[in-house]
Amino acid sequence: MAKTIQAVDVGAALDALRARRPLVQNITNYVAMTISANVLLALGASPAMVHALEEVEDFVAISDALVVNIGTLSPPWVEAMGRAVVAANEARKPWVLDPVGCGATPYRTGTSTELVGFRPAIIRGNASEIMSLAGATAEGPKGVDSAASSDAALDAARALARRTRAVVAVTGVVDYATDGTNAVRVEGGHPMMPLSTALGCSLSAVTAAFAAVTDPMTAAVAALAVFKVAGAEAAQRCRGPGHLPAELCDALHLMDAASLRKRAKIGPA
Amino acid sequence: MAKTIQAVDVGAALDALRARRPLVQNITNYVAMTISANVLLALGASPAMVHALEEVEDFVAISDALVVNIGTLSPPWVEAMGRAVVAANEARKPWVLDPVGCGATPYRTGTSTELVGFRPAIIRGNASEIMSLAGATAEGPKGVDSAASSDAALDAARALARRTRAVVAVTGVVDYATDGTNAVRVEGGHPMMPLSTALGCSLSAVTAAFAAVTDPMTAAVAALAVFKVAGAEAAQRCRGPGHLPAELCDALHLMDAASLRKRAKIGPA
Amino acid sequence: MAKTIQAVDVGAALDALRARRPLVQNITNYVAMTISANVLLALGASPAMVHALEEVEDFVAISDALVVNIGTLSPPWVEAMGRAVVAANEARKPWVLDPVGCGATPYRTGTSTELVGFRPAIIRGNASEIMSLAGATAEGPKGVDSAASSDAALDAARALARRTRAVVAVTGVVDYATDGTNAVRVEGGHPMMPLSTALGCSLSAVTAAFAAVTDPMTAAVAALAVFKVAGAEAAQRCRGPGHLPAELCDALHLMDAASLRKRAKIGPA
Repeated sequence: MAKTIQAVDVGAALDALRARRPLVQNITNYVAMTISANVLLALGASPAMVHALEEVEDFVAISDALVVNIGTLSPPWVEAMGRAVVAANEARKPWVLDPVGCGATPYRTGTSTELVGFRPAIIRGNASEIMSLAGATAEGPKGVDSAASSDAALDAARALARRTRAVVAVTGVVDYATDGTNAVRVEGGHPMMPLSTALGCSLSAVTAAFAAVTDPMTAAVAALAVFKVAGAEAAQRCRGPGHLPAELCDALHLMDAASLRKRAKIGPA
Repeated sequence: MAKTIQAVDVGAALDALRARRPLVQNITNYVAMTISANVLLALGASPAMVHALEEVEDFVAISDALVVNIGTLSPPWVEAMGRAVVAANEARKPWVLDPVGCGATPYRTGTSTELVGFRPAIIRGNASEIMSLAGATAEGPKGVDSAASSDAALDAARALARRTRAVVAVTGVVDYATDGTNAVRVEGGHPMMPLSTALGCSLSAVTAAFAAVTDPMTAAVAALAVFKVAGAEAAQRCRGPGHLPAELCDALHLMDAASLRKRAKIGPA
Repeated sequence: MAKTIQAVDVGAALDALRARRPLVQNITNYVAMTISANVLLALGASPAMVHALEEVEDFVAISDALVVNIGTLSPPWVEAMGRAVVAANEARKPWVLDPVGCGATPYRTGTSTELVGFRPAIIRGNASEIMSLAGATAEGPKGVDSAASSDAALDAARALARRTRAVVAVTGVVDYATDGTNAVRVEGGHPMMPLSTALGCSLSAVTAAFAAVTDPMTAAVAALAVFKVAGAEAAQRCRGPGHLPAELCDALHLMDAASLRKRAKIGPA
């Protein structure tokens, strides 16, 4: 039976990330690039955005983890994603899949489904994306936004985790992470978070950073907890979503393991 | 004769946008993507950035409106723009053209001219862009910035509207929207706004969001008024242009129909 | 012997930039586009992001300077870079090379090396990039971040400047600019600056803006000094790196030649 993750594990993961400063390769969408880089830097990781076929495998060789996000996919990028995940698997480096908009168009669903076959360590998506990827009957997404709650997607997440052997993280008002056997519930955050673009994409990048320093289940829960705690703290300083990305970076930068342990709301699903 | 738009119409359009939460497909430039998404989210719409040939038509089918912005154009994107606008027309969904830098290079002028032939509901540009697109004699633009005032472009805007049957919005110190017969003048804003990149592009995206819930002339005036009011409010909270995008998002998020009606400065041109 | 640059020269360069408002063409990476545009606007230049083969040379013809940054390079962009720098040389317009991640992959090192052959006026990089480009023995970079200090790269910078006849600027805790004979040291800044993505890329864009109004050595030192002064001022207003880009833009916008002359810390290397 898989272990249950607790706040103490999440605090230890943060310390490990800070000590290692992992180099995280991002093949991500145009909207998310800047905020993903800033979130990784603020937390204590080293980001790089590298996607050209001419170098994508060379860069995997020097990276500690990889995140593949299909938010603004196109054929040359999908080809690079394929090569990168094969290289990551061969080098035994963890990679995280963010299937943005899976279910919204056949191209997104097909690409996500194909990438899932390449053994991601972690899959992170919203409820609509995870339900679509799991093949569950779901109300269609609203473009790249979810039309379903994360609670409704938990069963699909478990099934997807069992089928793919990946840890599956489904995010929403409440977040869940599951390896198919155990499932962990993470609370916190703020309703304003979905009003600032690409924070979910940035969370996927953070998940990859944690995957460089700990096992996938701990990494997923640590990333969820860090974002829920920092997001809540950031939103308290905002009167609208405009300054949320900047405040989130500040909160991540100022967070330490002790405050994370104290504030993380982690429990069984 | 076309109707004259008043503050009350603009307030009603905002309420309609909030009620509908339209899904706005953006084929836009790399610089504008993040701020456009954040502006749409803050205002109450749902943005998606989708441009791959493999899915662009599928996404039009689920969107409520489309914005096509040529700011960082290249052949594959121009091809996707062409397919998207045809699909939008067939599905009777409104689309907005932002001819960034029209007049600066033959490639931009040619692409803009071709796209105009596909019946945009609204064309939104600065004075140099609108004058160039209308074929008016104009001082050349300074790259993607305008070298002319919006006042100087009003006749060109009217002519372009008559020829294309699109509503034409020309923005600057004062904004104008015209359907070729009537013309509306919108005042407000702040001189600092042109010092923050891609706010005009974001305004075009907002125009598309309004076009999903009302007629093109009301949509154009509503978008102009919302930006002039929110921009002025945002600039008052800034000592420089750095925080302007974040403050603009906050102002859009906190705006309600009553305050918009009260503060919008709309009159005949 | 080349002249030594002093604070008074840097102040004069800022006045010249504000008077000229140069149009700076950017062929840069996706992460840096928005912040580079905002930094240039805040300082008083006019930015444009133009990279399509179909227009890249046409745009050089109307620009005052060009920056080429390989941060998210791919073959079509590298081809556009090649055409743009040839056009810039033919039109006698200065161009700046930012060899992001040179040394991290063969593709980056090869592309940087090739571009260096096209006579950039200025090369701006971190220590690892400059050492790699100079062919010096160096500890490999950490992705796109430097693993070496700028002090360790000064000899490599001098050698690179002599070989290429470009001014070489190497940035870090302390910045240096050298034409191969003279070398200038610029102090200031803040340790938080590397925690906000693409500020180095934005600095390269600013270097190009100055190169439009003064000689390469003065331009490089002016850009370094402006960023060190504005960065220090910006960081004082921040509790973390989140608001640093916005504060930097405000500081650049509010800076005048007198305050720059007073605060710039420029001396012989």
